Amino acid sequence: MKENTEGSPVVPVAPSRGRLRPLGLDEVRITGGFWARSREVNATATLDHCRDWMERVGWIGNFRAAVEGRVQRDRRGREFADSDVYKLIEAMAWAGRHDSEVAALTETIAPAQEPDGYLGTAFGRPGQQPRYSDLEWGHELYCYGHLIQAGVAQARAGGEGELTKIARRAADHVCATFGRGGIESVCGHPEIETALVELARATGEQRYLDQAALFVDRRGHGTLADIEFGRAYYQDDIPVREATVLRGHAVRALYLAAGAVDVAVETGDDELLAAVVRQWEATVARRTYLTGGMGSHHRDESFGDDFVLPPDRAYSETCAGVASVMLSWRLLLATGEPRFADLAERTLFNVVAASPSEDGRAFFYANTLHRRRRGTVPPADTDSPRAESSLRAPWFAVSCCPTNVARTLAVLPAYLATASDDGIQLHQYADAEITTGGIALRVRTDYPRGGTVSVRVARSPDRPWTLSLRVPAWTEGATARLVDADGTRRTVAPGTATLTRAFRPGDEIRLELPVAPRWIEPDPRIDAVRGTLAVQRGPLVYCAESVDLPDGQEVDAVRVDPGAVPVDGPDGTVVAPGELAAPGEPHDPAWPYRPPGQSAVPAAERGGVVLVPYNSWANRGPSTMRVWLPATPLPRADADESTA
Amino acid sequence: MKENTEGSPVVPVAPSRGRLRPLGLDEVRITGGFWARSREVNATATLDHCRDWMERVGWIGNFRAAVEGRVQRDRRGREFADSDVYKLIEAMAWAGRHDSEVAALTETIAPAQEPDGYLGTAFGRPGQQPRYSDLEWGHELYCYGHLIQAGVAQARAGGEGELTKIARRAADHVCATFGRGGIESVCGHPEIETALVELARATGEQRYLDQAALFVDRRGHGTLADIEFGRAYYQDDIPVREATVLRGHAVRALYLAAGAVDVAVETGDDELLAAVVRQWEATVARRTYLTGGMGSHHRDESFGDDFVLPPDRAYSETCAGVASVMLSWRLLLATGEPRFADLAERTLFNVVAASPSEDGRAFFYANTLHRRRRGTVPPADTDSPRAESSLRAPWFAVSCCPTNVARTLAVLPAYLATASDDGIQLHQYADAEITTGGIALRVRTDYPRGGTVSVRVARSPDRPWTLSLRVPAWTEGATARLVDADGTRRTVAPGTATLTRAFRPGDEIRLELPVAPRWIEPDPRIDAVRGTLAVQRGPLVYCAESVDLPDGQEVDAVRVDPGAVPVDGPDGTVVAPGELAAPGEPHDPAWPYRPPGQSAVPAAERGGVVLVPYNSWANRGPSTMRVWLPATPLPRADADESTA
Repeated sequence: MKENTEGSPVVPVAPSRGRLRPLGLDEVRITGGFWARSREVNATATLDHCRDWMERVGWIGNFRAAVEGRVQRDRRGREFADSDVYKLIEAMAWAGRHDSEVAALTETIAPAQEPDGYLGTAFGRPGQQPRYSDLEWGHELYCYGHLIQAGVAQARAGGEGELTKIARRAADHVCATFGRGGIESVCGHPEIETALVELARATGEQRYLDQAALFVDRRGHGTLADIEFGRAYYQDDIPVREATVLRGHAVRALYLAAGAVDVAVETGDDELLAAVVRQWEATVARRTYLTGGMGSHHRDESFGDDFVLPPDRAYSETCAGVASVMLSWRLLLATGEPRFADLAERTLFNVVAASPSEDGRAFFYANTLHRRRRGTVPPADTDSPRAESSLRAPWFAVSCCPTNVARTLAVLPAYLATASDDGIQLHQYADAEITTGGIALRVRTDYPRGGTVSVRVARSPDRPWTLSLRVPAWTEGATARLVDADGTRRTVAPGTATLTRAFRPGDEIRLELPVAPRWIEPDPRIDAVRGTLAVQRGPLVYCAESVDLPDGQEVDAVRVDPGAVPVDGPDGTVVAPGELAAPGEPHDPAWPYRPPGQSAVPAAERGGVVLVPYNSWANRGPSTMRVWLPATPLPRADADESTA
Repeated sequence: MKENTEGSPVVPVAPSRGRLRPLGLDEVRITGGFWARSREVNATATLDHCRDWMERVGWIGNFRAAVEGRVQRDRRGREFADSDVYKLIEAMAWAGRHDSEVAALTETIAPAQEPDGYLGTAFGRPGQQPRYSDLEWGHELYCYGHLIQAGVAQARAGGEGELTKIARRAADHVCATFGRGGIESVCGHPEIETALVELARATGEQRYLDQAALFVDRRGHGTLADIEFGRAYYQDDIPVREATVLRGHAVRALYLAAGAVDVAVETGDDELLAAVVRQWEATVARRTYLTGGMGSHHRDESFGDDFVLPPDRAYSETCAGVASVMLSWRLLLATGEPRFADLAERTLFNVVAASPSEDGRAFFYANTLHRRRRGTVPPADTDSPRAESSLRAPWFAVSCCPTNVARTLAVLPAYLATASDDGIQLHQYADAEITTGGIALRVRTDYPRGGTVSVRVARSPDRPWTLSLRVPAWTEGATARLVDADGTRRTVAPGTATLTRAFRPGDEIRLELPVAPRWIEPDPRIDAVRGTLAVQRGPLVYCAESVDLPDGQEVDAVRVDPGAVPVDGPDGTVVAPGELAAPGEPHDPAWPYRPPGQSAVPAAERGGVVLVPYNSWANRGPSTMRVWLPATPLPRADADESTA
């Protein structure tokens, strides 16, 4: 492996090769707008919230119990509870939280590490199952993965510290235990792969990369048990380089794919990279929700078959959104293709941003696209089941999502822009300052509310360089324009718009994106939303929520008119042309299947239906909600019904 | 409780009160046609198949292991494995299998019963959890329920024997342990309730009925733990008499409702009966598939919210179909209303009959209405996961369904007809002989292939009596006719058609039912099937199956024309007017959501699409299948798309 020659960039992913070079948190600052608000809430509320809950439910205490020999009696939470403590530390490190907080958590964790590097509170101590006796469900390597990512974050954000050392010792233990000649298996939950590659990148240690490559190659050969969900659940059914689509448990599939890209990039394995790109393409074309959400089965948190995308049973786990952004980001760095930034944008705005409540102290675990029944307020003082609540819950029995959102928002500035030998590429749009290699840019925008993105050059070298701007795929069918510093305008197609020259300080380039609301129609093969339309406005998916309907009405009464267009309403809302079925109508037959024409739906008064951004729903109390709105009644057959 | 004064009828349900009186297996014989074939396969193949598998997987051996003190090492299967042995015995008893087979199984079971009546191989022995330490998941009382039903079957079909005595001792133990002053709880899986009432009916012992009533009243008060699925999973969220709809695990909900009807009928509790009728109505109107299938969630095998009825993720467990027939049958006996026989018919033909393969040696556990991907042949020699196979499997890790189908088919003749002080009521149509109380009827029909049902009076008393014939609800919108012995014809509406007079031997009454195929349209609130039509022919739901399409085509290419009508094809098929999308069309976009008009679907050549009865699908190798067929492309908006 090539030594990282750039020093230690403050980024979660620092490939030694690839088309684009990430910019660190020290090079990109978000200064205002949508993501600045999200990140402020994350930094001031969510991080403390997560730490307080993990003290309360005993997951931090598990480390103390391990040290004091009390795990059999006192350990709390599921097998993977350790990992959430690590993810919190990672988030704190990226967020630049006071070192003493990270140090305090590190001091709790450190004594639980055994002399041989093993670290975990769920296995191997008196009264527990032996280490590595349940690779299918035990999550021991998964926990190391998050420990290592936290250690890398510490090293890059603040300089190598105690946690980084713990992570290295754990990684050494993994290599010693699972390397060639060791346990010839993999973890039921991928995550260690991407973490080991990143540790290799951060430390220059080849053996971590080798071990990651070994894990990627081992998987798919039926090493793990054939469980009720099948080996596809943990991607042990087909080798990564042979698979054609993501399948099984969505988070596992996406973490594994991210790790495979990391290995492919570092080892120059173009075949492996191409395999993951192919899987990403098939998954995005056939197994992804309009929101970018992935995973349509509640039962095993898995992808469904192609086009199985029920809105009312969308699982669309928040962590799968985080993992999808991780994968797309790696593919963007490797290939430079804007389609990966397109999906990341969609997923960030409509899955990752949808999970936390406005106050950052409650979260969606599953992100349904249709809620039919007003639910109840989750308990404030006990954890909640992970998928059934209609409102965000403060904590879950399995609570992977809150800390995953926290660490993603903490590193978000690193996803905005990249550099290459040619210049700077802007991928995501936010009020921001970008300073790297003699170039300084000031980005001003109220995107996604407004579509205008102004890029002002504050500093530039004298030589020509290229400014690249992503023109989002969602502009397809409408018109996007690029306005140069001299006022010349040109239409730009979805993809990448570039300007190459010796920019001068004071130059202002404007990208004008058509964010007016538009109908979106589903592929006819997605049976679950046939005959419906959704509204998208820029990258934001909208939804109808019952709190915006007349008293007592629910969203399932909404019908929209595809013959007219949705328009902007006040306060970021959209008004869709449509109507509400009168209450109680259609009347309730004893049996809901009839010959055509027997259940004609009478017309109701028409008007506008207020829609709000999907990511903001459920912040105003229990409600019903739907993204896909029925567009037309079924045409009637005047067929001859005489029979007998 | 009133002493049963009729002797011991050979029926599974023998209420002492109610509008209708069941006829026993000694009074009704099925002599030909659809159900005769099913029952023949059941008797000659399925019963042996189930016994052989339960020997092979060790579930019968569990009783031997218990007696010999080997359960810790040798017990096989889940907590409820005992119950399948009992269900097999019940099926054998109703099927009139040679006594020596039942005796052999009984001899295996008997020594495992403890002196205090406790019987179960999963709890209470060395190395096992204590008795009744896990009422949520332990299924101990559930197993007693099936033991008792087997004991009742033995008593009624062949005379009280050893198994009946074992069942009585177990029931006495339950009353002693869970009666007033005992354990104040219920079983996580209802079933004991209906069994205890039946044992009370068979033995005249009031205390069994009292215990059943106690169990029904105890449930719904949050006695069991609040699990991840919520207490609704086992109906411990709301008392039976307050609930408005069935919810939670479908089989549990339906077994409980059946037990509640039994208690209500025997105690004259009209409020409780009305509560269950109300729940049945709401469930049938909003939570039932076209097939009669119930339960739309794989995750917890539960009902979904109202109108959450995804065809591709239909769970529609076979056992829920069996349980639904059990409930409807009890409500029919109690009220005399034909709507309960309507649902039973639909469920028998399209769920219960769909589960077993043509050879009776493989079964669907879940009965999906849409299979998108050709699956693989389940292993012949190991058990299968319960829901993922596209073909029926010989056995499952949880194998409740095969024995449930077996016992249902064994008692099927008892569901055909009833008697009352007025006369005879025919509820289900099959070639049959009915002989009861001085009346003998010969029913001739090839229903459901043909719609003509001939009822010939072979013997009749001189006094007038009433012959009642159910006119199925599915005839709505078409014309059914009744032809009297003298040739007079009259149109009869869905419900009940009656003829009252002193019939004479040789009289032949004909019911002419309009079985020509018809389109069926779903309620517009069932989002998952908007814009589609299904075909029903008589009580049979039809489906498209890929084996009937041109080579290599899959059912998702089918589109039907609601402007023309489906017609009969050869060999029991139906030909639906429609077309197949050309292979590869619509072309595969990179992202399946677009502004309207961008993904127009070109017309393909038109023709007929062959459909087969749903209950017969998947008998010809791996295939794709769908019941609901897309009827029309989404209308396009020519809306102004200029934006920015």
